[in-house]
Amino acid sequence: MSLKVVFLGTSSAIPVPNRSFPSIAVLRKDEVIMIDCGEGTQRQMVLSKIGFGRKMKIIITHLHGDHVGGIIGLLQTMGMLKRIRPVEIYGPRGIKGFIRSAMQYLKIKLQYQLLIEEVKEGLVLQEKEYEVYATRANHLIKSYSYLLKERLRPGRFDVDKARKLGIPKGPLWHKIQSGERIILNNKIIEPDMVLGPPRPGRILGFSGDTRPNRKLSEFFKGADLLIFEATYSDKDFEKAVENMHSTSVEAAKIGAKAGAKMLALIHLSARYDNPSIIEAEATKHFSNVVVANDLEVIEVPYPDSGEPFKRYQIKSF
Amino acid sequence: MSLKVVFLGTSSAIPVPNRSFPSIAVLRKDEVIMIDCGEGTQRQMVLSKIGFGRKMKIIITHLHGDHVGGIIGLLQTMGMLKRIRPVEIYGPRGIKGFIRSAMQYLKIKLQYQLLIEEVKEGLVLQEKEYEVYATRANHLIKSYSYLLKERLRPGRFDVDKARKLGIPKGPLWHKIQSGERIILNNKIIEPDMVLGPPRPGRILGFSGDTRPNRKLSEFFKGADLLIFEATYSDKDFEKAVENMHSTSVEAAKIGAKAGAKMLALIHLSARYDNPSIIEAEATKHFSNVVVANDLEVIEVPYPDSGEPFKRYQIKSF
Repeated sequence: MSLKVVFLGTSSAIPVPNRSFPSIAVLRKDEVIMIDCGEGTQRQMVLSKIGFGRKMKIIITHLHGDHVGGIIGLLQTMGMLKRIRPVEIYGPRGIKGFIRSAMQYLKIKLQYQLLIEEVKEGLVLQEKEYEVYATRANHLIKSYSYLLKERLRPGRFDVDKARKLGIPKGPLWHKIQSGERIILNNKIIEPDMVLGPPRPGRILGFSGDTRPNRKLSEFFKGADLLIFEATYSDKDFEKAVENMHSTSVEAAKIGAKAGAKMLALIHLSARYDNPSIIEAEATKHFSNVVVANDLEVIEVPYPDSGEPFKRYQIKSF
Repeated sequence: MSLKVVFLGTSSAIPVPNRSFPSIAVLRKDEVIMIDCGEGTQRQMVLSKIGFGRKMKIIITHLHGDHVGGIIGLLQTMGMLKRIRPVEIYGPRGIKGFIRSAMQYLKIKLQYQLLIEEVKEGLVLQEKEYEVYATRANHLIKSYSYLLKERLRPGRFDVDKARKLGIPKGPLWHKIQSGERIILNNKIIEPDMVLGPPRPGRILGFSGDTRPNRKLSEFFKGADLLIFEATYSDKDFEKAVENMHSTSVEAAKIGAKAGAKMLALIHLSARYDNPSIIEAEATKHFSNVVVANDLEVIEVPYPDSGEPFKRYQIKSF
């Protein structure tokens, strides 16, 4: 089952021609899990054909304008498009007031349910197949980094074992594969009698805006794809310190320490016309690194699948 | 002195790939007078190279998300870019609360002065060389249409008269041309002794979102360029009535009744892939009409100059 990370916006706070404000959409089954929602996100969603009807969670790293400027517009648009599925929003303290007060001034009424939750460190949300965790990032205002962790999947189906147990091919195989026990000739057959050991899910890490630190490399341990901010080149290290951001090299080092399989850099400062400088600096410290572009997709494979990461650009209009 | 109207965004409320949300920038001398500021406006300003340092007024037609979603981001960006010139914002009641409360939640502090004025019908603002008027539009919520009217300019300089009066060519000629009296050989020379009759300035009209009505064609009387919403095709007249918008034909009829010299249509519904249908419908009722595209410029000549309107596309990145 594919896990697609769509980079809707990859700029930092100052607008640039070729990057929209920060937003990442994780497409998983029929759901979109969005990390940040900068100004312009809804239009990027149109360009990437994600649509406005999916199951949806919006997770906000911090309440800086460039990371939240697109929420109100997106909510209103989904209202006008007669969305009925609820929308869940998670973010730091203040997110609820920000959204509710803007909706009040703009007289926005939604016919779908809007759940806004102010998060703390630790487990943010649990779904049947994945969880999201937060840890405090180190930025100018209260900010969080997030980890999306798929739960263990049932092990590989062992056809020989199934045959030996006399389980006929068909619906019962599917039940077992999806982790359910079955009853056959008055005997209970547990899934682990047929399946191999449980297999790992995929892990995605999102730094938000932050200075790097050891806690973050622990938090992102084992991430399949780590998406880290690299606002500055290594040459502008002082600016990174001053503005509480990370450099290309710092992001790469966190990726290496965390043992991430792939690293995608975002949030590049408007001062860099050419992202290849940032990429080259990072590559010296972490081999599998890219600077993500707007409307680019990275497909994250299961860690035990042996399949490669896929990377491609969505055709825009 | 050129008067450029830059169409930053020409969509209606639902996002589309090729149009940003509503915003029009009028460039006059070193000033930008912006009508509406939809989500994405600041990025369109980068693409059109308008810059963030000019003298600036932002005039809002109504508090719908698609018309105001870009204000907060723009204000914050200008803060980060160390703007020092004040910014004036005009709009319907509620605009002040909307902006101030969002700034509070997002902890936005600006080092430049921000003046927010809630407008009523009539004279909205006066500058040395132009005035802006508002009239109530007819939309779902309290909305205004606006008229930007340049004051009369000094008349044409009559070289023969100047010579007869013995005024030497040079700085004194300039003084008279700019409307100042001079003293020459202890004699006062009034400008009208040298200049022809005062000449008209240019008039721009902005409908905002509205149903058409007779009051509007009066309000826009004599506009050089009238920018009117044409959310719907004539074929979708019922939808226009239901959603309190105008059709192509209605906009054209207002243009004709007002005696406008040129009509630019904006705010097309997302349902129309091809704007030429809208243009063709309008053309039957008003000859000089265009559907404005994003990042298009219309240069408005002085009515007495005999010069043509110029229209061109800004090259984007």
